[in-house]
Amino acid sequence: MTGHAPNRNALWGRAVADELAAAGVDAVCITPGSRSTPLTVAFADHPDIHVFSHLDERASAFFALGRARRTGEATPLVCTSGTAAANFHPAVMEAANSRVPMLLLTADRPPELRDSGANQTVDQEKLYGDAVRWYKDLPEPEADDRKLRSLRTDLARAVSTAEGTPAGPVHLNVPFRKPLEPVEVEDDVPADLPALAAAGRDGDRAFVSTTAGHPMPDDRDLQRLARALDAERGLIVAGPADPPGPDPQAVTALAHATGFPVLADPVSGLRFGSSVRVAPVLGGYDGFLANGAANYWPEPEVVLRFGASPTSKPLRKYLAGTDARQLLVDPAGAWREAEFTATDLVVADPSRLCGALSRQVGAGGAGGASGSDSDSTAWRERWEAAEAAHWDAVESVAGDAAAGEGRFFEGRVLADVAEIAPEPSTVFVSNSMPVRDADRFAAPAAKGLTMLGNRGASGIDGVVSTALGAGSATTDDLTLVTGDLAYYHDMNGLLALERCDVDATVVLINNDGGGIFHMLPIEDFDPPFTGQFKTPHDLDFEPTGDLYDLSFARVEGHDREGFRDLYRESVASAGTDVIEVVSDAESSHRVREEIADEVAERVADLD
Amino acid sequence: MTGHAPNRNALWGRAVADELAAAGVDAVCITPGSRSTPLTVAFADHPDIHVFSHLDERASAFFALGRARRTGEATPLVCTSGTAAANFHPAVMEAANSRVPMLLLTADRPPELRDSGANQTVDQEKLYGDAVRWYKDLPEPEADDRKLRSLRTDLARAVSTAEGTPAGPVHLNVPFRKPLEPVEVEDDVPADLPALAAAGRDGDRAFVSTTAGHPMPDDRDLQRLARALDAERGLIVAGPADPPGPDPQAVTALAHATGFPVLADPVSGLRFGSSVRVAPVLGGYDGFLANGAANYWPEPEVVLRFGASPTSKPLRKYLAGTDARQLLVDPAGAWREAEFTATDLVVADPSRLCGALSRQVGAGGAGGASGSDSDSTAWRERWEAAEAAHWDAVESVAGDAAAGEGRFFEGRVLADVAEIAPEPSTVFVSNSMPVRDADRFAAPAAKGLTMLGNRGASGIDGVVSTALGAGSATTDDLTLVTGDLAYYHDMNGLLALERCDVDATVVLINNDGGGIFHMLPIEDFDPPFTGQFKTPHDLDFEPTGDLYDLSFARVEGHDREGFRDLYRESVASAGTDVIEVVSDAESSHRVREEIADEVAERVADLD
Repeated sequence: MTGHAPNRNALWGRAVADELAAAGVDAVCITPGSRSTPLTVAFADHPDIHVFSHLDERASAFFALGRARRTGEATPLVCTSGTAAANFHPAVMEAANSRVPMLLLTADRPPELRDSGANQTVDQEKLYGDAVRWYKDLPEPEADDRKLRSLRTDLARAVSTAEGTPAGPVHLNVPFRKPLEPVEVEDDVPADLPALAAAGRDGDRAFVSTTAGHPMPDDRDLQRLARALDAERGLIVAGPADPPGPDPQAVTALAHATGFPVLADPVSGLRFGSSVRVAPVLGGYDGFLANGAANYWPEPEVVLRFGASPTSKPLRKYLAGTDARQLLVDPAGAWREAEFTATDLVVADPSRLCGALSRQVGAGGAGGASGSDSDSTAWRERWEAAEAAHWDAVESVAGDAAAGEGRFFEGRVLADVAEIAPEPSTVFVSNSMPVRDADRFAAPAAKGLTMLGNRGASGIDGVVSTALGAGSATTDDLTLVTGDLAYYHDMNGLLALERCDVDATVVLINNDGGGIFHMLPIEDFDPPFTGQFKTPHDLDFEPTGDLYDLSFARVEGHDREGFRDLYRESVASAGTDVIEVVSDAESSHRVREEIADEVAERVADLD
Repeated sequence: MTGHAPNRNALWGRAVADELAAAGVDAVCITPGSRSTPLTVAFADHPDIHVFSHLDERASAFFALGRARRTGEATPLVCTSGTAAANFHPAVMEAANSRVPMLLLTADRPPELRDSGANQTVDQEKLYGDAVRWYKDLPEPEADDRKLRSLRTDLARAVSTAEGTPAGPVHLNVPFRKPLEPVEVEDDVPADLPALAAAGRDGDRAFVSTTAGHPMPDDRDLQRLARALDAERGLIVAGPADPPGPDPQAVTALAHATGFPVLADPVSGLRFGSSVRVAPVLGGYDGFLANGAANYWPEPEVVLRFGASPTSKPLRKYLAGTDARQLLVDPAGAWREAEFTATDLVVADPSRLCGALSRQVGAGGAGGASGSDSDSTAWRERWEAAEAAHWDAVESVAGDAAAGEGRFFEGRVLADVAEIAPEPSTVFVSNSMPVRDADRFAAPAAKGLTMLGNRGASGIDGVVSTALGAGSATTDDLTLVTGDLAYYHDMNGLLALERCDVDATVVLINNDGGGIFHMLPIEDFDPPFTGQFKTPHDLDFEPTGDLYDLSFARVEGHDREGFRDLYRESVASAGTDVIEVVSDAESSHRVREEIADEVAERVADLD
């Protein structure tokens, strides 16, 4: 932005907006407030930045998180001083744990008013503790050459750090002294301020441009790692992805070269897409590993792992129970493996590493690749047979979709959504049961579907907002699958449908409380099970349709075709629909158990 | 609780519940989760502790805050690990700033799973930074004599600190390792564990009982302070109260003894109650000081101040503009005065100090007490005349209630509520405009009315929950007066009506956005004023009636009698009613300005 700045705060705000735009930022999330006025005014004025206006800071932060989770790029957040900033904290925590870029711009009182008893003044210094990658309390605005250069540098650094390795939240605390509005203050901005400080670099270039390196082992280490993969029985385990997710082609190329099956978490970025045709990408492991099926099998020799800890507990336990060499690939050199069975840490970008290794393995003839080795082939076929057994068991117990009236249970909702969602789709799955049901019941498919979830801190908060934020970032069709507690927790997030112009299909699996607790031993202790864990709320969510101007349809849990029809209609039409699936957590869980038993039996029969 | 504990976690949870009960805790707020199971089970089982079950941790924390604000005693909070704890942060901040006792029990993974990539595991250590009075990461549960004694001591200390001087939040992070449920674990709890460690002290006494001292100056200092009050023109300024609030009799006794008017903030605990008959308690200052009325007056010589910084900006500016000796009384020795005009800090409990000083002043004949001195009398009468002029101006501009169709504006809603609310009532006023309107338009009255607000961080978050929490603590009638943004921000809090068995009358002043911004210079800059500050949302809140099973009535802003009738009906009947007053922020603000002009004219005429 050019032109005369009426005062130092306006100048400061513009420099912030300009540098963010130059760093590639095209949108911000703003909640109304007075202290943040110079930032708000600058962003609202900026021609290249879209403002998403929110009213609840918690929802605003999760919306920004959702955008960044989908794109890998930060959507900065602006709030006023006081508790507003504390409402960002849950999303900050999720961003920190799942490596989602986030930039928090919290307006603050000037230094002399801190800890003074002044109104709406709290201690915002290091508010998010160790959860941020970088914190800085910006200096007091002033039309000073060096200060403005420092500001521009800080903004470039903030984006670079938030989107660095590992990506995550960055917090800039931004003090302002009145006047906050763009009123003329004589002599506040000298006319002879150097142009570079006042207006930044020519051509909207960033004050400092970042060229980010990515960690890769050197050639000798690569050869050593390739030799480690020279095994007949290997696995590639892809956990929940750090945004923007791994390159599916690089991973499946390695899978093809080694002959190792890929166990792809539902939010690994690998379960869906054309690359599943290239190599065996499996999604039934949460079922067939659950009841000790792997007892009949030989041990894997080597496991290559990347992404966060897998959603699937059976998979984690299986990996913990093997003596295999386990290579943990992590670009940030972190140790995300809570069973402590890793033998090797490889500090590398997973996509680049897989690409390089697949070339090494291919060139050196290492590994039991290409199915040329019979043990290797038998190993792969065993996993593929178990995978097939799992999906057959699901069909057999839960009924055939084509038959019209299958046995309906919560898990099938996820299967149906993954099957029916149009291409391209973003499907956001809530924590608690939906992501687990997606893990077990959404089959790998060669379709353009991006499945996302908040698997950093795995909270049930902010789910609606994260989904709508993700939806706002692309032209994909958007589906959110959520339970009733998560839907309730973030109902405020539904306001973004209208205010931020997002359309979605919200599949609300309503089992009136915390269905997941039926999976835990506390189920056997009632009281307090029902009152304190299951916590039925008896809420009728239909009025949220009127409240947020969306269509609300309800279908009974056993009416599978009814659900599928409603879902098909919804994705085919504009506007937002909530499809409430009235469910019973306990009987749904019994179906899950029945399927697990059936899978175990079928897998045993394979031997 | 007695009887066999099936495992160490159950034993640990019981010790926590037992010690809290022994320390006087009679209720806790719990949100469902797995990691917190040992605590939840223990509280649910405890005969002397009531469990308020919430689903949104943010709402839960504000509910607990509201109870403690009303009673001065902590209602502990329990949550599971992960983002749940971060959702407490806004309420923690408010509790820290407004000195409300709060005890946070956040369940956590055991040490070996921290920073390991384990599911739902975040860094909870010192999560709330400097906002808590005390933080401790409790040791791993174990049926060990010394550990259990440390646990019992820590719980006693936690309550004592949370309710100490200054009161505020205390955070205990509580790690648990599976099994979390009360399943039998052989040999986990030795039968020969000393009874004191296992079951605490006999007769449900606390493991450590606290006798809390309160700061008081010694006699010589008291005499010195009494001499400082030996002045003809003095004021007593009571800001927002630290719970449980000052003793009105002690304060008005000093006012009577010195002849000083009391300027009583609406949430000072002094504006309403029979003590207003004892001494001049004024509530119109926000009006008559606003337009420079005090220019006609002599300066005060001395000002005795306690509580937080006053809500009224005109009052703060008036105090900043005098050369008076200003004594800031604060039991915690804090410096809550952001105009930096205090000359003396008195570290003392305000009630005790006022009581002691009134005896000194009375005995020593100090001060212009009892109206015996003509200058003193003239000073007091000037304030009383200005006070009368203010209320007359309000009637004159905004119309007479008795006339049926007065001129209605937002400020009168607060006046009407304060007038009509039955005795005893708790009236909770939201931040942004309601507390300011209460300040200016709710006249002091000799009635049993406790007016409360969140004036620590002055956020618009958690307002519904804080009010309902306050309501849950007494048998008072409960009224909440809130704007539309605050109502929206904490709609989730309405769930407590049903789940926590609270009845309320919610007066929802709906001006479709941030009306307060009309008071700021940004009003003149549109855009971005409407889009980014006023932020109209166009929400129809009527469906919240169906959602939360409450009655919803709507009245147009100009229909004053209509509102008064609805409000009278609501307080006379059981159940919860939302009365939405459809308002126009801008025209309401114009009426405020008109009244201010009228007051200024009348005050000028007094001279």
